[in-house]
Amino acid sequence: MAVSLDDKFESLESILAQHLPADVLQKVNLSLRGSGSIEVELPANAKETAKQLNFDLQGYQIKVALTEQTRPSRLVRIGAIQNMIQKPTTATVKEQRDAIHQRIDQMLAVAHECQVNVVGLQEAWTMPFAFCTREKYPWVEFAESAYDGPSTKFLAERAKKYNMVIISPILERDEAHGDVLWNTAVIISNHGNVIGITRKNHIPRVGDFNESTYYMEGNTGHKVFETDFGRIAVNICYGRHHPQNWLMYGVNGAEIVFNPSATVGALSEPLWSIEARNAAIANSYFTVGINRVGTETFPNEFTSGDGKPAHTSFGHFYGSSYVASPDGSRTPGLSRIRDGLLVTECDLNLCRQMKDKWGFRMTQRLDLYAESFARAIQPSYQMDIVKDSSSTK
Amino acid sequence: MAVSLDDKFESLESILAQHLPADVLQKVNLSLRGSGSIEVELPANAKETAKQLNFDLQGYQIKVALTEQTRPSRLVRIGAIQNMIQKPTTATVKEQRDAIHQRIDQMLAVAHECQVNVVGLQEAWTMPFAFCTREKYPWVEFAESAYDGPSTKFLAERAKKYNMVIISPILERDEAHGDVLWNTAVIISNHGNVIGITRKNHIPRVGDFNESTYYMEGNTGHKVFETDFGRIAVNICYGRHHPQNWLMYGVNGAEIVFNPSATVGALSEPLWSIEARNAAIANSYFTVGINRVGTETFPNEFTSGDGKPAHTSFGHFYGSSYVASPDGSRTPGLSRIRDGLLVTECDLNLCRQMKDKWGFRMTQRLDLYAESFARAIQPSYQMDIVKDSSSTK
Repeated sequence: MAVSLDDKFESLESILAQHLPADVLQKVNLSLRGSGSIEVELPANAKETAKQLNFDLQGYQIKVALTEQTRPSRLVRIGAIQNMIQKPTTATVKEQRDAIHQRIDQMLAVAHECQVNVVGLQEAWTMPFAFCTREKYPWVEFAESAYDGPSTKFLAERAKKYNMVIISPILERDEAHGDVLWNTAVIISNHGNVIGITRKNHIPRVGDFNESTYYMEGNTGHKVFETDFGRIAVNICYGRHHPQNWLMYGVNGAEIVFNPSATVGALSEPLWSIEARNAAIANSYFTVGINRVGTETFPNEFTSGDGKPAHTSFGHFYGSSYVASPDGSRTPGLSRIRDGLLVTECDLNLCRQMKDKWGFRMTQRLDLYAESFARAIQPSYQMDIVKDSSSTK
Repeated sequence: MAVSLDDKFESLESILAQHLPADVLQKVNLSLRGSGSIEVELPANAKETAKQLNFDLQGYQIKVALTEQTRPSRLVRIGAIQNMIQKPTTATVKEQRDAIHQRIDQMLAVAHECQVNVVGLQEAWTMPFAFCTREKYPWVEFAESAYDGPSTKFLAERAKKYNMVIISPILERDEAHGDVLWNTAVIISNHGNVIGITRKNHIPRVGDFNESTYYMEGNTGHKVFETDFGRIAVNICYGRHHPQNWLMYGVNGAEIVFNPSATVGALSEPLWSIEARNAAIANSYFTVGINRVGTETFPNEFTSGDGKPAHTSFGHFYGSSYVASPDGSRTPGLSRIRDGLLVTECDLNLCRQMKDKWGFRMTQRLDLYAESFARAIQPSYQMDIVKDSSSTK
């Protein structure tokens, strides 16, 4: 086939905008994304900086929620940052991390200019996604303490300065428990302190995502963090494939769930626009899908368990970060090929309003599923299969 | 806004095909639907009949699964039928039902010509979707016995004649349990017998879906029906909003899950393309979303709890039936405005192959969720919320 998702085109949205007449484009966008998000004007200075620094900057407002009599509206500006690595993977660990810090520093300043209140970074944002190599060193040296590692210190300073909550997904070194590694998100308050941590609950064994070589399934459950800008949870990467994982963050009261990710085109791109949006619908909260961008090349070749020759690149991380709303609509995606900052203003009151409208929580029948799951995990479980008595097969 | 989802356009797919150059269309389709489905040629006679009878007939093949050494491939042709009511709602119950039977009879004959093995009909296919009225009579007179009602008898005859499994979602009258009503799917074997029934697990209380006035949440759990053409389950309508419902059909071994529905534009269209596809991905099975089509007008006016004046129509049922594959891809949708038959050939071996590839079942951690749900349903449950110790709010 001539066309492939490995192609380096900017985005689905840009293709449609380029080829469709305005009225047709409007109808197509309505079909694809719902009526929920409208573009908002961002500060001229922020746009100029983004242009100079060559990153995609887009701003949207989610449909205004109803005005309630007994609750004031709770407008929050969510930021989503996607970025490439900034140095070759052959540079030292410190050089690589410092260069990414510098890039994020620039982008956080623009986020502040755009009045972002809560910003999420991509999965393992301080490092290349080196798990494809199955090499331990030097890659595990990117791991750091969640509470006082260099990246937490770096972000805590900016969080306080900008009065901004920052979601920082890192490779965590857990010295208190035998030096093990975890895939962890650190939730840094707008006051500059660490509110807490939450770990990746589901670890992939697919393609070159050899993460189970490095760390185990998370042991922090489904914590939700109450911040000055809403109740926030973090479902890291592969956890987005598991609806029951999304569901438990909702049960614990989440209003915004970040999904920091690192995923590549040929494998997952047809799934990307579906999963976080489905979660926003099913759980009546906002979701923020953030994917790494760019192609990372490693010093030593590795194979991919697919019969193909050894190679040194994981494939193209396709960015396309977006926000989905509890009303089922979504923003356009950021670039598939460039760094980007997506700014989305929303009223958190929409979450409870959608619960009231659709009634998904009320009709959830969690008792049925608690009981069904408890039976299903028994080694002696018999699937509830009804056979056709007339079949001769 | 000039454009609305209440507009009677044919489909998103037809708009894109009309306006985009071939190479661009290919890329857009790949982004939107994945690479999984290719169009297949259906018999000329079937196409001619569909044209004469004015219904949309489309045929696709889902990407061929790997050839395995120890299992033969299991090719199955799935049919999805969407249809309007055929008589005004002022006609007698018998006239209305007979007219729909006649229409379905024609469409089943075409399905047979297209070598369909398993066909699904839409929710409450024998009647107008009259629950918006909250009137009991005459609408409840459409209810019938699942085992020997007129519609089951009608379909059982065709099932045997065509060697075709038929999924028949009806309004059920349960005489053995106090004459209560249920929203039920009857699974009719290709040998002409009823394999069993499965009931709608989640009942809506949204918009004009006043179904909770007529029947309760289903009591048949998550049965899967083993047929000559694969293991089949039925998640009726509003159950598609509940990922935990989809999940349990997967736990019980389903390979094809039908989602017979009746849903209208302004309310749910942005959700429609997301939910059944997400379920196919998360559970490594095929899903078949079937939605009613057309606008139904009722004799007496009713209000909709939205402050607007009384009216006599529910809104436009937008059809758009489609099949989603466990690899994340999907077929195009049927027409938004016409009756239709979608024929999709797939290899059921793809289900287990996708489980092996993605590992979603292996990494599901059902034990964690059994325990989490069991705690969450306790009246004394405390949500797992971590507060920001520095917050002064």
